[in-house]
Amino acid sequence: MSVMTFRELTPVSFLERAAAVFADRLAVVEGNLRYTYAQFWARAQRLAGMLADHGVRPGDRVAVLAPNTHVLLEAHYGVPLAGAVLVAVNTRLAAPEIAYILEHSEARMVIVDAECQPVLAEALSGNEKPPTVITSKEYEPLVDKASPLRVEVTDERSMLSINYTSGTTGRPKGVMYHHRGAYLQALAMAYHAKLDTSSRYLWTLPMFHTNGWCFPWAVTAAGAVHRCLRKIDAGEIWRAIRREGITHFCAAPTVLAMLADHPDAATPGPHPVRVFAGGAPPWPALLTRMDALGIDIRHLYGLTETFGPAVVCEWQPEWDSLPAEQRVRLTARQGIANMIAEPVRVVDSAGVDVPADGQTLGEIVLRGNDVMLGYYRDEEATTAASVDGWFRSGDLGVKYPDGYIELRDRIKDVIVSGGENITSVEVENTLTEHPDVLEAAVVGAPHPKWGEVPIAFVVLRSGASTGERELVEFVRARIARFKAPHRVIFREIPKTSTGKLQKNVLRHWATQQEQP
Amino acid sequence: MSVMTFRELTPVSFLERAAAVFADRLAVVEGNLRYTYAQFWARAQRLAGMLADHGVRPGDRVAVLAPNTHVLLEAHYGVPLAGAVLVAVNTRLAAPEIAYILEHSEARMVIVDAECQPVLAEALSGNEKPPTVITSKEYEPLVDKASPLRVEVTDERSMLSINYTSGTTGRPKGVMYHHRGAYLQALAMAYHAKLDTSSRYLWTLPMFHTNGWCFPWAVTAAGAVHRCLRKIDAGEIWRAIRREGITHFCAAPTVLAMLADHPDAATPGPHPVRVFAGGAPPWPALLTRMDALGIDIRHLYGLTETFGPAVVCEWQPEWDSLPAEQRVRLTARQGIANMIAEPVRVVDSAGVDVPADGQTLGEIVLRGNDVMLGYYRDEEATTAASVDGWFRSGDLGVKYPDGYIELRDRIKDVIVSGGENITSVEVENTLTEHPDVLEAAVVGAPHPKWGEVPIAFVVLRSGASTGERELVEFVRARIARFKAPHRVIFREIPKTSTGKLQKNVLRHWATQQEQP
Repeated sequence: MSVMTFRELTPVSFLERAAAVFADRLAVVEGNLRYTYAQFWARAQRLAGMLADHGVRPGDRVAVLAPNTHVLLEAHYGVPLAGAVLVAVNTRLAAPEIAYILEHSEARMVIVDAECQPVLAEALSGNEKPPTVITSKEYEPLVDKASPLRVEVTDERSMLSINYTSGTTGRPKGVMYHHRGAYLQALAMAYHAKLDTSSRYLWTLPMFHTNGWCFPWAVTAAGAVHRCLRKIDAGEIWRAIRREGITHFCAAPTVLAMLADHPDAATPGPHPVRVFAGGAPPWPALLTRMDALGIDIRHLYGLTETFGPAVVCEWQPEWDSLPAEQRVRLTARQGIANMIAEPVRVVDSAGVDVPADGQTLGEIVLRGNDVMLGYYRDEEATTAASVDGWFRSGDLGVKYPDGYIELRDRIKDVIVSGGENITSVEVENTLTEHPDVLEAAVVGAPHPKWGEVPIAFVVLRSGASTGERELVEFVRARIARFKAPHRVIFREIPKTSTGKLQKNVLRHWATQQEQP
Repeated sequence: MSVMTFRELTPVSFLERAAAVFADRLAVVEGNLRYTYAQFWARAQRLAGMLADHGVRPGDRVAVLAPNTHVLLEAHYGVPLAGAVLVAVNTRLAAPEIAYILEHSEARMVIVDAECQPVLAEALSGNEKPPTVITSKEYEPLVDKASPLRVEVTDERSMLSINYTSGTTGRPKGVMYHHRGAYLQALAMAYHAKLDTSSRYLWTLPMFHTNGWCFPWAVTAAGAVHRCLRKIDAGEIWRAIRREGITHFCAAPTVLAMLADHPDAATPGPHPVRVFAGGAPPWPALLTRMDALGIDIRHLYGLTETFGPAVVCEWQPEWDSLPAEQRVRLTARQGIANMIAEPVRVVDSAGVDVPADGQTLGEIVLRGNDVMLGYYRDEEATTAASVDGWFRSGDLGVKYPDGYIELRDRIKDVIVSGGENITSVEVENTLTEHPDVLEAAVVGAPHPKWGEVPIAFVVLRSGASTGERELVEFVRARIARFKAPHRVIFREIPKTSTGKLQKNVLRHWATQQEQP
C-alpha cells in the first residue's frame, strides 16, 4: 500500500514529471544552447552518473562555482540524483571565503565555470585534501559519456543542499535545506508567480543565492522556460524582455534601480512582466517608476534560512481601485505567509505577539516546512537561531491589521538617537522620494550628545546635482526632524555579493566622518 | 529543531493561514449568509468543540448528509479539527444505501440537512446503535455556544475522510483519504485552476463527491470566495455568473450540457469563466458550444481513489494558434499528471507501458501522494486494486506522443463485436456531433452472430426530431460501419447520483430490446 500511496517529496520529481509531460517543450536557453525537458532530464541523470564515476557517494557534498549557467541549473537536479548534497558557492566571494566554504563543507568535488577558475585555484592553493575539480571544458564530454544514474530519495527530510550565508560579519554559516522544504517552497513559488507553460523565466537572481529562491525547481514544475544569464546587465535584461518574451524574473531592488535608470527604460516593454523583488525593501519611488514601465513588482521577504521567500505581498483585488500612491504603499509591504508557510509572527522581546497595528515594532519569527534543518556543523548557532520553536529572523517589523507585515529594519541597523528609535529604512525611503536620488543608505554614527545620529549615503541619478542641505531639508519636511540625516555623503554604496547593503562598512565610514 | 522545521501537512492549515492573512476577506456566501475567513476559522473550531461535546473522539467517524451548504463546507475543517474522520454522504442515495454507509463506517454522529431528514430517518429505522443526529435546526445554536477546539494532526498519513464510491454495481467501497494527500492535491488544484484572492468559486460539484475534488481546501488556500449552492439549476448558475462575478466552477459534462441548452445561454457571460470538467469525457461538440459562451473548459480526470483529478489537460501556449476544431480535440483529452501527481502510465495486460502513439489501448494506472490509503475495512478490495504498487483505474485509454492521455472507455464498457473492440465513447462522441443530439450513451447487447452489438440511447435537443435511421447513417458516414449503433433508442439516460451514466441499467434495457 505504501508503495502505491506515499512518495517522498523531492524537487527532483518536478523534472521527472516535466520530462514525461512536457518532453518536447523548451526547457533551457543559454545563448545558442537550447534543450527540451526530455533532454534536461537525460542530462541531469548523466550528470549524476558522472559524479558517481568520480567517486561521489550519497551524502557527499558537491560544490558548484558558476554564474547562472545551465551547468549550475543542471546541478540542482544532477547532484541530488546522485544522492549528494549541492553546495552552490557565491562566485563573488574572495578566495579565502571560498576556501573556507570548501573546507567547511568538505566538498568532494567542485564543478567550476571557466571564469571562476582563477579564484578557485587561489582558494585551493593551501588545501591539503583538495576536491576533484571539473572544469567547464571537461564538463560536457564527461556528462555526455556518463551513464544515467538515479539514487532514490528515501527520506524527504534529508539534506538536499547547503547554502552558505553571505553574513556581513563573521564566518559564513551553512544553511541546510531538506528535500521536503524545497519541494513545497517550489510549489508555492510556482503558484504565487503564476508560472505556467507560457512563462519564460529570466535567471537574474543568482542560483547560488538560497538556491535561487527554489525557482530552479518551480520553473520546471510549471513546464516554463529557464533563460540562463551569465551576468546582470540592464541592457541585456531589457533586450530579453523585448525580444525573447521574458515574463518573469526575480531581483534585488538594486537590480531594479539599474533597470529603471537604463536608457532602454524610456518606454514600457511589449507585455507585462512579473517581478519578484526581495532583499532590501524596494523604496516606494522605485515601485512607481517600475509600474510605469509595465513591470509588475511583487514584493516578498525571506531569508536563506527559510528557503527564500516565506512571505509574499499577495495582491488583493480591492486594491485595484485605490489611488496609485496608496497602491504603491501596499505593494511596498512584505506581505503574508506564502501558501505553504505558517503565518508569520511579529513578537516583542518576551516572545509575545505585538499588536497588529502597523506601528508596534517586533522581531519577525517563522517556523514550518520552509525552515532549514539547521546550520551545518554548527550546533551552537542552530540553537541560538530559534526561540520557543520559532526561527528568529533578526529583522524588525510591524504587522498591519490586515495581517500583512512590513519590514522596518535589521535589528542591528536601528539607530538609537536621544533615546528614540530611528529605523534606517524610513529615512532611506524618504530620501529616495526625492526625484534626484537613485539610492540611499542610512546608518548610525556615535555622537557625544545623542548617543547616535543618522548619517546618509546617497547616489544621485545621472546628471543630478542636489546638495546635502537640500536633501536634509527634504527629509525634515516629511518626517520627524530628529530622524533627518546629520550628514549626507555622496558616494557609491558598497553591497555584499548578494546585493545587500554593507551597513557595517558604512557604519565604519560614518564613524570616521563624525570623529575628525 | 523539528518543532521549528517540520509541520504535519494537513489541509486544515489552509484555513488557519487564511484566517491570519485574509481575516476580513469574504470566505463563504450562501443566500443571505456571508462570513469572513476569520469567522470561518472560528466557526470550524467551535464545530470541533461541539463534536467533542457530543462524545466524538479522535478517530471517530462523523457523517454529514447535506447538499453543498456552508455546513458541509465547515465540516471539511471542523471534523478534522476534532481529530475525527469526515464521511460526506451522497444525498441522492436511497435509504438502504445510506444505512449501509452509516453502519459500515460506524459513524458516531450524523449532521443532517433539513431536506435529507426524511431519508435519514428511514435509513436509521433498523439501526440498533443509531448515531447521534444533529439537525439543521440544532446545528447553529450548538455551534454558537460551543468552545473552540483544535486537535493537532500528529501524523499527516493518518485518515482524514472516507469517501464512499457510487459504484454502479455492488456495495459502495469506503475510500480512505489522508491529510497529506488532501493538502498536496488542494495545492495542485489551486495552481491549475489559477485560483487567487480575486476568484469566486461556485459550488456546483457536490462536496460529498471525492470531497469536492479537494476544492473545499483549495479555494481556502487561495483566499477566494466559496459560493455555496444547494441545487444544480442552470438558470441559477447563469445568474451567479452574470450577477455575482463567479470565476470558477467544477462540473460533470451533463451539467455543462444543461447549461449550454438553457435559454440564458444565448449570449456569453460578462467575463471568462474557468470550468474544470470531469466525470465522463465532455464530447467535442459540447466543448465548442461552451467555448462560444465564454466558458473555458479545462478537462481533467481522476477517481475517488485519487482524490479526484490526478490528471489535468494543461493548456500549451502553442495551441492558441491552432484551428478551433483541433483545439477542441486537444482540450477533449484528459491530459497529464497534475503538478503533485506522478506521471500516469498506460499499461497492457502484462503491466508493460503501451507505446505513446495515441492509438494503442491500455489500462491507466496511477500512484503517488494523491492515491488513497485503501478501502476502509476491505483488505481484499484494497489488494485487488493495485498491481506492482500501482493503482488500477479500470479505465482504458491511450497516451499521445506529447504525453497526454485520452480516456477511451471503462474497461467493462468496451463492446466486443465480431472480435473487434468498439469503445462506447467513440460512438457516443460521433453521435453528439449531430446538431440535434444533446446526449448519447452506447452499450453492448448480446447478439447471436456478432457476440455483442452497440445499442445507442439518445436524448435530442428540445424541439428536434431526427430519427433512428438518420442517426445510424450519420455515424456510418464518419467511423467504421461495424461501430454504428444497431439500434437507437430515444429516452432519458439514467445516471448515478454523481452524474455517471448508469451503463449497467442501459445494458439491461439494451438486452431486453435485442431479445423480443
